[in-house]
Amino acid sequence: MAMWGGRFGAETDKELAKFSESISYDRRLYPYDIAGSKAHVKMLGATGIIPVATAKAIEDGLEEILHLIQDGKFTFKQELEDIHMNIESALIDKLGPEGARLHSARSRNDQVALDIRLYLRHEIREIQQLLRGFQHALFELADANKTVIMPGFTHLQHAQVVLFAHHLLAYVEMFDRDFDRLDDCYKRVNVMPLGAGAIAGTTLPIDREMVCRELDFARITRNSMDSVADRDFIIELLADLAIFAMHVSRLSEDLILWCSQEFAFIELGDAFCTGSSLMPQKKNPDIAELSRGKTGRIYGSLMALLTLCKGLPLTYNRDLQEDKESLFDAIDTVKMILRVYPPMIATASVRKENMYNAASDPALMATDIAELLVKIGVPFRTAHHQVGALVKYCNDHNRKLNEISLEEMRISIPDATEEFLAVFDPEASVGKREIPGGTGFNAVRQQLEYWRNRL
Amino acid sequence: MAMWGGRFGAETDKELAKFSESISYDRRLYPYDIAGSKAHVKMLGATGIIPVATAKAIEDGLEEILHLIQDGKFTFKQELEDIHMNIESALIDKLGPEGARLHSARSRNDQVALDIRLYLRHEIREIQQLLRGFQHALFELADANKTVIMPGFTHLQHAQVVLFAHHLLAYVEMFDRDFDRLDDCYKRVNVMPLGAGAIAGTTLPIDREMVCRELDFARITRNSMDSVADRDFIIELLADLAIFAMHVSRLSEDLILWCSQEFAFIELGDAFCTGSSLMPQKKNPDIAELSRGKTGRIYGSLMALLTLCKGLPLTYNRDLQEDKESLFDAIDTVKMILRVYPPMIATASVRKENMYNAASDPALMATDIAELLVKIGVPFRTAHHQVGALVKYCNDHNRKLNEISLEEMRISIPDATEEFLAVFDPEASVGKREIPGGTGFNAVRQQLEYWRNRL
Amino acid sequence: MAMWGGRFGAETDKELAKFSESISYDRRLYPYDIAGSKAHVKMLGATGIIPVATAKAIEDGLEEILHLIQDGKFTFKQELEDIHMNIESALIDKLGPEGARLHSARSRNDQVALDIRLYLRHEIREIQQLLRGFQHALFELADANKTVIMPGFTHLQHAQVVLFAHHLLAYVEMFDRDFDRLDDCYKRVNVMPLGAGAIAGTTLPIDREMVCRELDFARITRNSMDSVADRDFIIELLADLAIFAMHVSRLSEDLILWCSQEFAFIELGDAFCTGSSLMPQKKNPDIAELSRGKTGRIYGSLMALLTLCKGLPLTYNRDLQEDKESLFDAIDTVKMILRVYPPMIATASVRKENMYNAASDPALMATDIAELLVKIGVPFRTAHHQVGALVKYCNDHNRKLNEISLEEMRISIPDATEEFLAVFDPEASVGKREIPGGTGFNAVRQQLEYWRNRL
Amino acid sequence: MAMWGGRFGAETDKELAKFSESISYDRRLYPYDIAGSKAHVKMLGATGIIPVATAKAIEDGLEEILHLIQDGKFTFKQELEDIHMNIESALIDKLGPEGARLHSARSRNDQVALDIRLYLRHEIREIQQLLRGFQHALFELADANKTVIMPGFTHLQHAQVVLFAHHLLAYVEMFDRDFDRLDDCYKRVNVMPLGAGAIAGTTLPIDREMVCRELDFARITRNSMDSVADRDFIIELLADLAIFAMHVSRLSEDLILWCSQEFAFIELGDAFCTGSSLMPQKKNPDIAELSRGKTGRIYGSLMALLTLCKGLPLTYNRDLQEDKESLFDAIDTVKMILRVYPPMIATASVRKENMYNAASDPALMATDIAELLVKIGVPFRTAHHQVGALVKYCNDHNRKLNEISLEEMRISIPDATEEFLAVFDPEASVGKREIPGGTGFNAVRQQLEYWRNRL
Repeated sequence: MAMWGGRFGAETDKELAKFSESISYDRRLYPYDIAGSKAHVKMLGATGIIPVATAKAIEDGLEEILHLIQDGKFTFKQELEDIHMNIESALIDKLGPEGARLHSARSRNDQVALDIRLYLRHEIREIQQLLRGFQHALFELADANKTVIMPGFTHLQHAQVVLFAHHLLAYVEMFDRDFDRLDDCYKRVNVMPLGAGAIAGTTLPIDREMVCRELDFARITRNSMDSVADRDFIIELLADLAIFAMHVSRLSEDLILWCSQEFAFIELGDAFCTGSSLMPQKKNPDIAELSRGKTGRIYGSLMALLTLCKGLPLTYNRDLQEDKESLFDAIDTVKMILRVYPPMIATASVRKENMYNAASDPALMATDIAELLVKIGVPFRTAHHQVGALVKYCNDHNRKLNEISLEEMRISIPDATEEFLAVFDPEASVGKREIPGGTGFNAVRQQLEYWRNRL
Repeated sequence: MAMWGGRFGAETDKELAKFSESISYDRRLYPYDIAGSKAHVKMLGATGIIPVATAKAIEDGLEEILHLIQDGKFTFKQELEDIHMNIESALIDKLGPEGARLHSARSRNDQVALDIRLYLRHEIREIQQLLRGFQHALFELADANKTVIMPGFTHLQHAQVVLFAHHLLAYVEMFDRDFDRLDDCYKRVNVMPLGAGAIAGTTLPIDREMVCRELDFARITRNSMDSVADRDFIIELLADLAIFAMHVSRLSEDLILWCSQEFAFIELGDAFCTGSSLMPQKKNPDIAELSRGKTGRIYGSLMALLTLCKGLPLTYNRDLQEDKESLFDAIDTVKMILRVYPPMIATASVRKENMYNAASDPALMATDIAELLVKIGVPFRTAHHQVGALVKYCNDHNRKLNEISLEEMRISIPDATEEFLAVFDPEASVGKREIPGGTGFNAVRQQLEYWRNRL
Repeated sequence: MAMWGGRFGAETDKELAKFSESISYDRRLYPYDIAGSKAHVKMLGATGIIPVATAKAIEDGLEEILHLIQDGKFTFKQELEDIHMNIESALIDKLGPEGARLHSARSRNDQVALDIRLYLRHEIREIQQLLRGFQHALFELADANKTVIMPGFTHLQHAQVVLFAHHLLAYVEMFDRDFDRLDDCYKRVNVMPLGAGAIAGTTLPIDREMVCRELDFARITRNSMDSVADRDFIIELLADLAIFAMHVSRLSEDLILWCSQEFAFIELGDAFCTGSSLMPQKKNPDIAELSRGKTGRIYGSLMALLTLCKGLPLTYNRDLQEDKESLFDAIDTVKMILRVYPPMIATASVRKENMYNAASDPALMATDIAELLVKIGVPFRTAHHQVGALVKYCNDHNRKLNEISLEEMRISIPDATEEFLAVFDPEASVGKREIPGGTGFNAVRQQLEYWRNRL
Repeated sequence: MAMWGGRFGAETDKELAKFSESISYDRRLYPYDIAGSKAHVKMLGATGIIPVATAKAIEDGLEEILHLIQDGKFTFKQELEDIHMNIESALIDKLGPEGARLHSARSRNDQVALDIRLYLRHEIREIQQLLRGFQHALFELADANKTVIMPGFTHLQHAQVVLFAHHLLAYVEMFDRDFDRLDDCYKRVNVMPLGAGAIAGTTLPIDREMVCRELDFARITRNSMDSVADRDFIIELLADLAIFAMHVSRLSEDLILWCSQEFAFIELGDAFCTGSSLMPQKKNPDIAELSRGKTGRIYGSLMALLTLCKGLPLTYNRDLQEDKESLFDAIDTVKMILRVYPPMIATASVRKENMYNAASDPALMATDIAELLVKIGVPFRTAHHQVGALVKYCNDHNRKLNEISLEEMRISIPDATEEFLAVFDPEASVGKREIPGGTGFNAVRQQLEYWRNRL
């Protein structure tokens, strides 16, 4: 009979037991469940709800159970449903009736809310640290290639010349916002729910602030019903991870393009690629592809939790048990990506000459011509039209922009001078974009400095 | 070195190996992988691509491996990545170089497409059978309570009187459409992709039609690139399962409402409910709640796969490996729901008197009065207004519709007669709705007959 | 006061009126609402529920209203909430009390279910016709370029040589399954719900089969509660459209790649591209990009409807009103894509020489060497390793596969002969893949024939 | 010919023009587009890129256009694609060639990023203000009913007695977190992107910090490529709104339950409900239902944007144009909910006696008995079992917990005393839960004080 089974006249059906157990996946919460129980029992002792000696014995018993689990010597039982019951039951086995005092003034509803918050505090900080490592790997590659020139793309079409480092630092920016979002989420995770009980608090004289201090939370929750009913901090985290995954999917797309034979802008280390069971020549950028694919998985977890919570009446409903697998999977997935991606980035060898050749496409400097015209007083929209006409002239005559004479150029651009013919130098084009945030050599060097200091 | 590693100069990074392995979850495909390989190798022998004796030896070897796995004696190796390589490698260990002939004219790209299709053929039929069981459980409960009357709800407000059996049969209808959708999906799953190779077919003289016959597919795929690139049959299946889950979430909502103290329309067996760790009196409808919660999970899987495939260029991309865990989880979840829900339904005890009392709310017969007026020639919209005025009169005087005199009724409804006062009988109200598809006693009996014959 | 307002003591709040109205978007249902009402009233007359003369007058009145709307002379009123009330009210204005007989034995609940089904029957067939046009455009481009050779990609890496036509026909296959899915969905749409009333049918002696025949439905619904509660046919359609959009997103990705300067495989007509407000040289493949982007929108609509229906108790809930905007938007979006994409495809000019050059990468024929070895008896896995070693040798010596001598080849492949040196011809490579579904010239010609006949 | 059309040889196809226009929906950005342009042109003048007089003339021209639009006298043209081109074109019409200087050193890519950020700053603050109003309405209802007692639910089963005010304040907590999340999002919105140009900044000597000051942003963006490529601040906002909608869906579910005949806990004002076209007695809680339904719509918008951005290479791709309609729809939907919900809350009449009767169910005090046992030294788990046995005893004898004698109680609970029989008083039960965050009268009064001060 289950530990809550006093009022029941029949054993739980076996299929239901399998259907409703969570111990197969919530066991990972054990360090947090034990830490929470230790703080709780200490308070029960301090407030006189249970004898101090019992409180101490329970604390010690919990510590022993912690070590048993850490050493792989603890037997988890499905019929005990979840991590909370498994640990409480082991404690009672160990201490007898005195162990049965632990669960005073507490429900699994507030207990699990506490466990997840403790767990997430740990995981958020860990993910943030890994994020910094990812940023660092990108920074290193950027720093090591700070003068490498490549074509910048919009619509996957040649747009303007940029520095490869500038392109990489765009991702460092994105991951920085991801880091900040996690900080903001942490604030809402770091609130102490224990004492909410099942729904309404408790009639026993507990001291919630003491538990809060013991577990180093910023404050206690203000409303017991909200404390056990809501999971919005989980959804917020999943949304943050989904945005991170979206950023990774874009970086992956860039890398996959760059590894193609058509682009051939970079090559990744053999150790970070795999081959084909059929085609002997293949070397595939699997990490980038798998990471892009895993984006779907994280979006799916977010959607799962949003759907889960939609339309639930207050307060706790058993549906909420389904919050964990999606959450755990998203966290594991993100951490895996964060572990495997940075070392792969470090193996990237940059094929500068290919990038440079691509960046020498004179069409990339069309805007420079228009802006040259602005500098000599031509209204921009007029300048744009003239250069557009020049492009058309070149297309019609099957010539490139840098293959025509000044006379030909003047057909479209009456004000063109010799200076206009000198515009088709990728270095020069980059060099002219020194505004803050631009791709100029100095501008990017300043961005690199900024990140060197921050990371 | 991996089996595809001829061209590689470095061992696969350990983190990548962990990141990219699928053997931890794709091992469940083993019976299908082996069945597919046996058909393939038989064909390789028959067409002379490999010696007949080798083909026979490989078939036997595969059969042995099948039994090893079934008996739990096979060691899966993560470094062999996936189920395909694990089996092929074991075969080569067993047969030596002759085993190395199996993978001729085949790629993992078409192999995995085949495996999933074989797997899904099996699972779809299994889910359909379980669906029939679910319908049957609902039918039995309906049939056993075919004259039980309850209020029918729109907007969760009392609308009109209905039979409890009619309400249950609405779900039988929904699950029937779910069944039909699976049939339609099966047609698109049941197409044979092997021979597509990695992308372009093969230069070896294979016989795809023979493999098709051996594996009992309806036809072969028509385009090799499509065969390895697309996963729309998986997404279609997930959409079908998502709709099923939506239906279950609605049934669950109804059951949860009915189990509440406020409704108190049914009670579920103790064996299919659980209690509270804190509150001794609790008996919760967990299966309904968990099933409603799992809806989110299945929606999430659908979203994951849709996201996964969005924007992938042709043909196979490694992202597609991520199709499996979401798919497996959705299938497992649906089957679990289908296993635990019907026996729970069978334990439902119907609290007829509570339902009847609720159904005796005279407001439920307001439409009957309006339709009575139509029968004596009053235009419906006029009738609706008169009855509306009557409702207002009763509310204003804090009386129920069946607590007023004929004189009072005539204030709002000039044409009212004695007959109008007799309208507030729930049985009579149900009894008047005998149109096909209606909730009349005979109409529902006919619906029950229909399902008795079909299920 | 609203037409349903008999029992209400206060006017509807203005903000609520705005919040709950649907006439701003459901007005597009007018032809279906009127067709449904005409069939309904004809039946009301035939069954004697209302006088035949009234029925006829109402039919005529509805016909007039239809023309008023078609001619833009009808004034829709927000305070009348929806298309149903707008039309019924106009009818009553026209006919007086006799018009108030129309809504007998009917509720907006079954009425709107009917309207949407009528609307969807029309839209599904229209989308299917447009899909055929899309397939045709791809077929035409394939047929006109049936011998054009290109590299086939897996992992966006050069895999094997394929025909451009083969690549295009992969999409024709996908859209064909989309077509078939719509056929299957149509079966479930084509069922007649009228007569279900608000929830329980009606006490009036209606003839549902007559209405079914009048409106040319396949059959009537079997359960009134299901008829007004469920929207799974809408979700099914959205899932079908989401899969279609996914297919379009992949084609778009391919086209965008092919239009890039790095690939340069095709060029689209000026009329189907746009430029940049800043960069005069730009010509962007906007249709492909926008279509890829609109995939998200259609996924979003699917997710909206799945979320909407999750956990709703039976039967009709006002939430369901939210089904329409998402549905309409998805249908409009798909039809827009289907209208603009085919003419764009028709303008594609194929840059054969670039494709051919890319296809001449000898690595694309590595599998051919391995299969040549299989033909002379080498086990495939051994052959794969030898060719892999050859690739590594070439990489290490910075040479291409077709730039080494037979002697060098024999270092890795002892059995190599002169024949092996001749393998690097793209045409020959394609020509060897003549299995059904393969990319061989004849195989593709047969596929083209198949589609010429079907489309 | 379009304003970017210099290089094009054919007019834009009409279907494409319709497909790709955004003026039909992005026109709402006009005040932000004009404010941004004014700051930009002021800077162009100050830096000498264009003559100061021209800058002034353009500023004035823009001001005039602003008023034209505000007064409804501006003609938007679809062939000018978007709001940016419509305004620039009108300016050039007005000022001639001098107007054509406005777009110097700017692209639509950074311009639209600026416009959306300006727009969102405005909308976020507006939503926050409305959120405060929503909290206030809930607070008022709580404050006016601060001693009303009701049953608290878990699993929609009677759990423990709570104060109605406590239940309402749970939602005030949730909306407070929603408010805080918007604050956090605002930080990331409030960054100035102009100067990023199309992708790489500009060669003209602009002053980004001046524009930043003019428009009162916190800082400028650090990387031009990131500035035009990323939309994560939009996705973050949509996630915040999705969580808010989830909260609303739960409140709606509660209200819908409470309005049902079975609960009958509250009644909403007639002005905020609607009736039925068929059933004259119906009064439906439409706002709650529609709001619950609209949750799906907002989830859908979030999913649309996540899908949109997945896998896009840097930098701007036309797909991103699709960000706006989903964003606008989500914002409009949330604001509509926030406008209509609070006045509806204000009309709620609380049916205290029904709540009290429901709260008098003695099973709600079962936990109180167990905690009484803890107070006299019985270990909690033992106490829980004893009370469970008592519940079973009562069920088996068809009695309620408060209908048995002390002797009978002692069968299950040996230590029971007279005090135990006095536990079944709802007021007393609430009164014992005075811990911070609990539902005790004082605890809730303190919570009310807290909110009175904050709101």
